[in-house]
Amino acid sequence: MKKFAVIIAGCGVYDGAEIHEATLTLWAIDKLGHQYDIFAPDIPQHHVINHLTGEAMQEKRNVLVESARIARGKIKPLDKLITEYYDALVLPGGFGVAKNLSTFAFEGANCDINADLNNVVRHFAASGKPIGGLCIAPAILAVILREVEVTIGKDPSTIEQIEKSGAKHVVTDHGEVYFDEETNLFTTPCYMLDASISQIADGVEAIIGAMVELGMKE
Amino acid sequence: MKKFAVIIAGCGVYDGAEIHEATLTLWAIDKLGHQYDIFAPDIPQHHVINHLTGEAMQEKRNVLVESARIARGKIKPLDKLITEYYDALVLPGGFGVAKNLSTFAFEGANCDINADLNNVVRHFAASGKPIGGLCIAPAILAVILREVEVTIGKDPSTIEQIEKSGAKHVVTDHGEVYFDEETNLFTTPCYMLDASISQIADGVEAIIGAMVELGMKE
Repeated sequence: MKKFAVIIAGCGVYDGAEIHEATLTLWAIDKLGHQYDIFAPDIPQHHVINHLTGEAMQEKRNVLVESARIARGKIKPLDKLITEYYDALVLPGGFGVAKNLSTFAFEGANCDINADLNNVVRHFAASGKPIGGLCIAPAILAVILREVEVTIGKDPSTIEQIEKSGAKHVVTDHGEVYFDEETNLFTTPCYMLDASISQIADGVEAIIGAMVELGMKE
Repeated sequence: MKKFAVIIAGCGVYDGAEIHEATLTLWAIDKLGHQYDIFAPDIPQHHVINHLTGEAMQEKRNVLVESARIARGKIKPLDKLITEYYDALVLPGGFGVAKNLSTFAFEGANCDINADLNNVVRHFAASGKPIGGLCIAPAILAVILREVEVTIGKDPSTIEQIEKSGAKHVVTDHGEVYFDEETNLFTTPCYMLDASISQIADGVEAIIGAMVELGMKE
């Protein structure tokens, strides 16, 4: 039984965590017999998007408070994440990763990274514990870790920014997981491809399984 | 390939749709080779709950707009649901069913029911097409349809209100589906029991499977 720290960044694909990816990450961890705690930063959302129209709303929301919707209230502030308590780290996607946890959506490879996220990712990487990134999250992991190999599927403009950050991108398709053995880093495209929800489930189950099987050797 | 209409009631267990149940409903329908459209009423939420603290927030949100987060924007107003286009109807749970789609959370068996929901459920029942209810949704279906048999698991106060409405309640455990053959009505407890997320997935997959196998005989 392994323990995963899951970091999410709101509640909704356009301004927060992608809900299907986040939910299915929890499902895959539980289904495969492991445990999780969920974390989110206690910061304002970059903005609030009306998911019906795609337009910005004149509202303020908090990333931790909205993330608590996906977590059913069982969530902790990201600055309370103690690396030592966990065997692995995983980041589902959604624009929240690129707008709330970083400014990647606006500044690409030159983006700012949330300081707590930066610390957590560097701690996990330094300890050799596996890190997993879904959807757009691999791009932000690339900016933090630089000389790594990741996949976000096949989106040209995102790949360009990933390679600008000093990382290497590997093209993948639905459900595939790319394993950067040197960094113990696992990535999979999820909704960066035009996918059905059961294809998302396949990718998430594959990455969680791979993190345990390949990423946690003694 | 069967087509499901899925009705959700916001985005978050305490004031809207239960996110895991709603997401896993879409996953199960897709995984089993079927299709879905998602609907929600275009009405104000009863209230907005801070899912971190459990307390009400001084905000106004719209059920359709928040439901669009789970649907990734692909959602229609409930009053546009044409029964004839669908083979089955399914309602995931969450307090939104008992606060936005009805007043069951406050008035039990004597609750008011959203007029569009009432129409849709009665149309599906009259046509003999299968109806599925997860979590608390069976209680609202019982109020609409009255002389039916449902399960919400084993919560005594909810069972009392269900029986007050004229329905019969059947106790069930994790992943079990109760089939009221006369009404072609399928119900399963999900988070009305203290469940893990993979137990929710098991229950959801079981109910969607049963609706197709048992509920759609020629």
